Amino acid sequence: MRDLLGGKGAGLAEMTRLKLPVPPGFTITTVACNAFSKIGKFPLGLKSQIAAALAKVEAKAKRRLGDPKKPLLVSVRSGAKFSMPGMMDTVLNIGLNDEVVGSLATLWKNERFAWDAYRRLLQMFGRIVRDIDPHRFESVLDRWKAKTAGGKDTDLNAAMLRSIVDEFKGVYAKEGKRFPQDPRVQLEEAIGAVFRSWNGKRAVDYRNFHKIPHDLGTAANVQTMVFGNLGDDSGTGVVFTRNPATGEKALYGEYLANAQGEDVVAGIRTPLKVAQLKGNMPKIYRELGAHAKRLEKHYRDLQDIEFTIERGRLWILQTRAGKRTARAAVKVAVDMAAEKLISREEAVKRVEPAQVIQLLMPRFDEAAKTLAHKEGRYLAKGLNASPGAATGTVVFDPDEAQRMGRDEKKPVILVRVETSPDDVHGMLWSKGILTTRGGATSHASVVARGLGLPCIVGAESIRVDYDDGTFSVGEMLVRHGDPISIDGTTGEVFVGRIPTIEPDFTREKELLAILSWADKFRRLEVWANADYPRDAVRARAFGAQGVGLCRTEHMFFEEDRLPIVQRMILAASDRERQDALDELLPIQRADFEGIFEAMGELPVVIRLIDPPLHEFLPKYEDLLVESTELRITGKDPARRAEVDRLLKAVVAMREQNPMLGLRGCRLGIMVPGVTEMQVRAIFEAASRLKKAGGDPHPEIMIPLVGHVNELKVERGKLERVVREVMQEQGVTIDYKFGTMIEVPRGAITADEIAEHAEFFSFGTNDLTQMTFGYSRDDAEGKFLMAYVERGILPVNPFQVLDRAGVGALMRMAVERGRKTRPDLKVGICGEHGGDPESIAFCHEIGLKYVSCSPFRVPVARIAAAHAALKEKSGPKGTD
Amino acid sequence: MRDLLGGKGAGLAEMTRLKLPVPPGFTITTVACNAFSKIGKFPLGLKSQIAAALAKVEAKAKRRLGDPKKPLLVSVRSGAKFSMPGMMDTVLNIGLNDEVVGSLATLWKNERFAWDAYRRLLQMFGRIVRDIDPHRFESVLDRWKAKTAGGKDTDLNAAMLRSIVDEFKGVYAKEGKRFPQDPRVQLEEAIGAVFRSWNGKRAVDYRNFHKIPHDLGTAANVQTMVFGNLGDDSGTGVVFTRNPATGEKALYGEYLANAQGEDVVAGIRTPLKVAQLKGNMPKIYRELGAHAKRLEKHYRDLQDIEFTIERGRLWILQTRAGKRTARAAVKVAVDMAAEKLISREEAVKRVEPAQVIQLLMPRFDEAAKTLAHKEGRYLAKGLNASPGAATGTVVFDPDEAQRMGRDEKKPVILVRVETSPDDVHGMLWSKGILTTRGGATSHASVVARGLGLPCIVGAESIRVDYDDGTFSVGEMLVRHGDPISIDGTTGEVFVGRIPTIEPDFTREKELLAILSWADKFRRLEVWANADYPRDAVRARAFGAQGVGLCRTEHMFFEEDRLPIVQRMILAASDRERQDALDELLPIQRADFEGIFEAMGELPVVIRLIDPPLHEFLPKYEDLLVESTELRITGKDPARRAEVDRLLKAVVAMREQNPMLGLRGCRLGIMVPGVTEMQVRAIFEAASRLKKAGGDPHPEIMIPLVGHVNELKVERGKLERVVREVMQEQGVTIDYKFGTMIEVPRGAITADEIAEHAEFFSFGTNDLTQMTFGYSRDDAEGKFLMAYVERGILPVNPFQVLDRAGVGALMRMAVERGRKTRPDLKVGICGEHGGDPESIAFCHEIGLKYVSCSPFRVPVARIAAAHAALKEKSGPKGTD
Repeated sequence: MRDLLGGKGAGLAEMTRLKLPVPPGFTITTVACNAFSKIGKFPLGLKSQIAAALAKVEAKAKRRLGDPKKPLLVSVRSGAKFSMPGMMDTVLNIGLNDEVVGSLATLWKNERFAWDAYRRLLQMFGRIVRDIDPHRFESVLDRWKAKTAGGKDTDLNAAMLRSIVDEFKGVYAKEGKRFPQDPRVQLEEAIGAVFRSWNGKRAVDYRNFHKIPHDLGTAANVQTMVFGNLGDDSGTGVVFTRNPATGEKALYGEYLANAQGEDVVAGIRTPLKVAQLKGNMPKIYRELGAHAKRLEKHYRDLQDIEFTIERGRLWILQTRAGKRTARAAVKVAVDMAAEKLISREEAVKRVEPAQVIQLLMPRFDEAAKTLAHKEGRYLAKGLNASPGAATGTVVFDPDEAQRMGRDEKKPVILVRVETSPDDVHGMLWSKGILTTRGGATSHASVVARGLGLPCIVGAESIRVDYDDGTFSVGEMLVRHGDPISIDGTTGEVFVGRIPTIEPDFTREKELLAILSWADKFRRLEVWANADYPRDAVRARAFGAQGVGLCRTEHMFFEEDRLPIVQRMILAASDRERQDALDELLPIQRADFEGIFEAMGELPVVIRLIDPPLHEFLPKYEDLLVESTELRITGKDPARRAEVDRLLKAVVAMREQNPMLGLRGCRLGIMVPGVTEMQVRAIFEAASRLKKAGGDPHPEIMIPLVGHVNELKVERGKLERVVREVMQEQGVTIDYKFGTMIEVPRGAITADEIAEHAEFFSFGTNDLTQMTFGYSRDDAEGKFLMAYVERGILPVNPFQVLDRAGVGALMRMAVERGRKTRPDLKVGICGEHGGDPESIAFCHEIGLKYVSCSPFRVPVARIAAAHAALKEKSGPKGTD
Repeated sequence: MRDLLGGKGAGLAEMTRLKLPVPPGFTITTVACNAFSKIGKFPLGLKSQIAAALAKVEAKAKRRLGDPKKPLLVSVRSGAKFSMPGMMDTVLNIGLNDEVVGSLATLWKNERFAWDAYRRLLQMFGRIVRDIDPHRFESVLDRWKAKTAGGKDTDLNAAMLRSIVDEFKGVYAKEGKRFPQDPRVQLEEAIGAVFRSWNGKRAVDYRNFHKIPHDLGTAANVQTMVFGNLGDDSGTGVVFTRNPATGEKALYGEYLANAQGEDVVAGIRTPLKVAQLKGNMPKIYRELGAHAKRLEKHYRDLQDIEFTIERGRLWILQTRAGKRTARAAVKVAVDMAAEKLISREEAVKRVEPAQVIQLLMPRFDEAAKTLAHKEGRYLAKGLNASPGAATGTVVFDPDEAQRMGRDEKKPVILVRVETSPDDVHGMLWSKGILTTRGGATSHASVVARGLGLPCIVGAESIRVDYDDGTFSVGEMLVRHGDPISIDGTTGEVFVGRIPTIEPDFTREKELLAILSWADKFRRLEVWANADYPRDAVRARAFGAQGVGLCRTEHMFFEEDRLPIVQRMILAASDRERQDALDELLPIQRADFEGIFEAMGELPVVIRLIDPPLHEFLPKYEDLLVESTELRITGKDPARRAEVDRLLKAVVAMREQNPMLGLRGCRLGIMVPGVTEMQVRAIFEAASRLKKAGGDPHPEIMIPLVGHVNELKVERGKLERVVREVMQEQGVTIDYKFGTMIEVPRGAITADEIAEHAEFFSFGTNDLTQMTFGYSRDDAEGKFLMAYVERGILPVNPFQVLDRAGVGALMRMAVERGRKTRPDLKVGICGEHGGDPESIAFCHEIGLKYVSCSPFRVPVARIAAAHAALKEKSGPKGTD
């Protein structure tokens, strides 16, 4: 009944029903609040209903509101369907007035307590119900506190508090406002104020931000006050039914004797561990343990319980699902399933994909990080592009990073203004990446996430000076070779080393259990993108069921191959080009052999060359500057001739918009021999494996197809070469031929394209670029982040798939493609394949698999299970 | 009955029915051909049917096939439903053999004639029916011709021809083949050969290319031979019922006395004008005139008639619709409508949009062009990017072109390697554009077509040397200042001047008539793209019903404004930027006033700024080179500082893919004040006009919208400024607010976007780029032309709208947009708006208007009428 009673009210009612010691009270429903919002006053009958409910509470508590002998004090707290922490109002200690305050002192034999409670009521009521500037009360309080020795609230004695009460009344008078001495009036006005707070600016903004409907309304909970600050037999605390950090099954929490909830928050005294209650108040401890167990069993989840001990009597004030770390979430879910408290299905649902990511990243030792802050080693903050922690020496040059990382086995952090495909060889061998430019989908971010490397981008306060080999933030200077530490989870950069803790997937027993359960529930297969054999090995370890994308061009960028690739590109004749291709063939073949070997009988989708060829040549700008320099200085004529030759070639190949230029299958069609060489390498590799007893399943994927004829042409070439190789090798390879769907026209004409494709794989990175008309390299920095900030776009569509636009094209492609070829296999290999929300969409539109970076495979396994379970339990996703 | 009888057969049958003197004959239907193709021989009963039909012909002709006394000779000609000129076979003079040849000589008293006819039969039958290499016959003939004085066919006498016949029989013998002496066998085998030729390689290729179905089959026409080479009372010729060059209503054609059809083609003697028949053979001339009139009336179109006079008797051999020039097409259509021969609807249908384009372009005097060729002034050929002819002096620099064209009123031809937006000011004042790079949608092509300027691009044999101020083709050198002439209709470039003939639209009476009739039939409105007042004036003169696209940024590129625009872009503060915007305001306002004035009460769609701002700054490459130079030489430190400042700004703004970067509405959203300035300029201009008694209708268009929120933000700004201006000026302006649909996501989410847009205008240039993933600047040269050549794409999608992809998005946008807003006004302002095929599609999907360059308006008027008439008469377009 959370709709009607709000979260808090429902919890209180539930606990009351369970006969837990809940202070008597009642809840006024959200319906009343909505009526109040509409007509601006209490709806007819509400006052008498309040009176009736109060009478019952009074009977139960055996005290009466405003009774000078046995006064009842109550609180009025808001409580909506969805938690909106701190957004709405609460009034405590209702029921006190000039008369009752004395009897309260008598009742509890504590005058200071009574006057303190009264001044709190005056203060809260003034601020919340009478809308008096809170500073007016605080300045009075501050003046009095200044007179005491300690200077704190607790140093104020009863007499002082009595004077403060007088002065608070003066504040009311000066404001021309009145504090009602009638407790019933206090109560009604407090309820009205709580209702009004639903439409307060803070609450409205919060709901807008969190997309909570504005017509839900809040409930108002009226509850008997209990006090933990009535002596050493009193106290207050918070207890978790299990350890929220580790998930360990044992009561975990803190309490303060002789204190109120606010005192715990204020941190005046160090609270004690709940376990210490066992010795101090064994009966209470046992009782608390029993209630905790009861509540956990009832709610079938780790509970976060607030309690108060009032003169030796335990009261439970609130219970809710406890927040927990990723580690705890997984352990609690697995343990509870083992305890039969929840089903395995429920256990899987309880683990968020984001928690899985956290668990798989190296992290800093928290204490060491805190120390680093204290020591002034904090340097800068950037965008947390890829989570995890890393420590290493600063290197600016990718070649050096490769040398140090690969050959010298030294941990390095690659620091760049930004990265490009030329830098990948260095990134591969770094422990972490730090750039001063770029956004969440910049090259550095994408590659780092793909590699599972911690990465911080756009750390704009850092100035890199490549020439000096230094970088600086204000006065702090870091030199090449100095150690730094980066926390990709938070975006923080530190000077010096901070110890990290490395996760070991195979030892994460509970996580492995959850994932294996998830595998049973999901319909989507989870494949991985892997360009190198070691990626494939890793992908399998993480549970990948295939390789969804092997980008062959990454192989071209490696140091020993680049010169051959450049010769191929700059070839003056078909002959020269073919010579270079012939040289590349055995290298590519060896790469593919490694991947097939790693993946065994699982399918491996290999995409033929995709990027524009000028990416493999020296940069135009560098050549232009060097050519100008050599021209003016007249030095080194041989080099000048070479530079001018290269410059001429680069100029001829340059494009205004390389993203929309000669790349993808257009390359295969326009540059003779490339497709043939790649296909030959793949099938020769597969043949070798097959002959050695393996069972490779290559799937050849043509990128950037926009017209069926492109696919037809490439398919023709492929089939010829495949026949040749199979004949030469005398083996039969079971293979598939398909295409990426990454050009809008490809999606729109999917029915035609499916005639020549056995599978589709959505390249949602490019599809997003073209559907929105956003160049990924440019948009984020120039306007995309601003769009997201200003709410023009709900999210960055390169991170979370845009359902209305890109998603609509995907849905269309699936439907049209399957119309032509009902058994068409459809997957996704864009970065969205590792994003939980996007995975849910892929499930909805009926894809066969998602393919993501190896490190995301466990995340995708959980997300895919969630999507399937959501479909099973809830209504279908919106269309 | 063209399906059954083929075009030729149907014509002969029709003429026979009209009792015209057609040589007796019969037609074997396509059904027989198809049966023959299927079973590989004559179907049962065909032979006897041929015999029966032949008997009737023999009776009519009073001669018999193979009769030694009165021999009948017949021809067998192919004739399919659709004309396939020269693709299939014909055999003439069937019926001759060793015996008949003598009686033929006797019958016509002409031995040479008889033996020449026989050697022709042997030659044709050998080649076509017996598949003998034609060179074998030709080498015999050549040898005999070499023996004569003249060396021509006609120089061979009867004795020689008799020897040739013997040698031809030898050729058969050497090939092991036989010439049938039985005329009936000749006939049947010739018919079989004609049927077989339907599936010959040439015919199949031709049908593939022209998309003619392969299952139609050809008919075979068997017809009595008649001869025009039997003396001075014989002859042969071709006559048009009206002048095919001018459309003038008078018999027009040529004839040769004592000749056969082949002699006319061979050009041995100069033919006489048909009018001369009047004096030479008055009876025949009268008869021919009567038949021509009869046929034109019957077919209700200009006829192209073949005739032969055999010994004073006129025979009509063929009639068909005559090919004609654009001018003639229009005049004939209008005249025939006036003569009530055809309806106005039919007249409109008879004029092709391409013919309208031709009529509106200046053209070279044909004789002068022929002379130029003879004088060796022909230089090179490029792609005919924009039709029309121009002569002017060579200028390489756009500034100079502007100065000379505008200030000195001199005709110039701007010659560039390629053009960019920076060059537009020079293009504006040139008479023609010649570039050595680029394709049909390169910048030069697009701008030139927009301006209606003759343009040749991609003239790759030309080498431009900007430094020397020359260009060259091989040894020919042309200097800056030299006169050249370019023919944009053919792509030819000449040295020196060639006189041009300028069209005058207002004096093209017949064209104006056709257009006014077309206007009555069309449903689509035709608007024009106009950036300057003079474009708007021109657009109205051509009949535009509104301005569909006014690109405000072109105004920014003009010389006097660019420095202000640059200050706006480089502004260090909001204040500085606003100052620059304030300076631009009155300039923009004046531009808009001019356009509103020109368009009167017609709607004017103004698009807010669209291109990336770096287009307004100096080129990155130039700055980089200059900066490097200054750095090394150490010269001019002040200039170096300035260059480095600019370079820094340009680097900061540079984009990898500017097409997909910070442009369109993204600019308006990210750069404060620009939208406000433009909107203010528009509405202040409109207010002034309104106060002066005008009735302007501005429609504000937001470019590059991909998400409804973009439009929402811009709409908010606009409405605020519009309210302000209206209040300040005290007038109310009737305006509309809308968006371009040019990003795929805009089309897909058109339902959402229509909530904030009163109109859509398809920007099909960008929509094509993004739907295909083709950068227009890069694709054409790098792969697009090759794609079209290889048949991967049927056409260049930047010229003819791609229905399956881009068109599908348009259809979707129209449907979804109208779902939200049933009265949504939808048009197109991309270049496709001027392409007839694309206009037909726009009609089909229910657009309200097409907007094209002013020069294309008459074309679009015709094309729109054609689309409407096609819909009325035929089945609906495919879906």
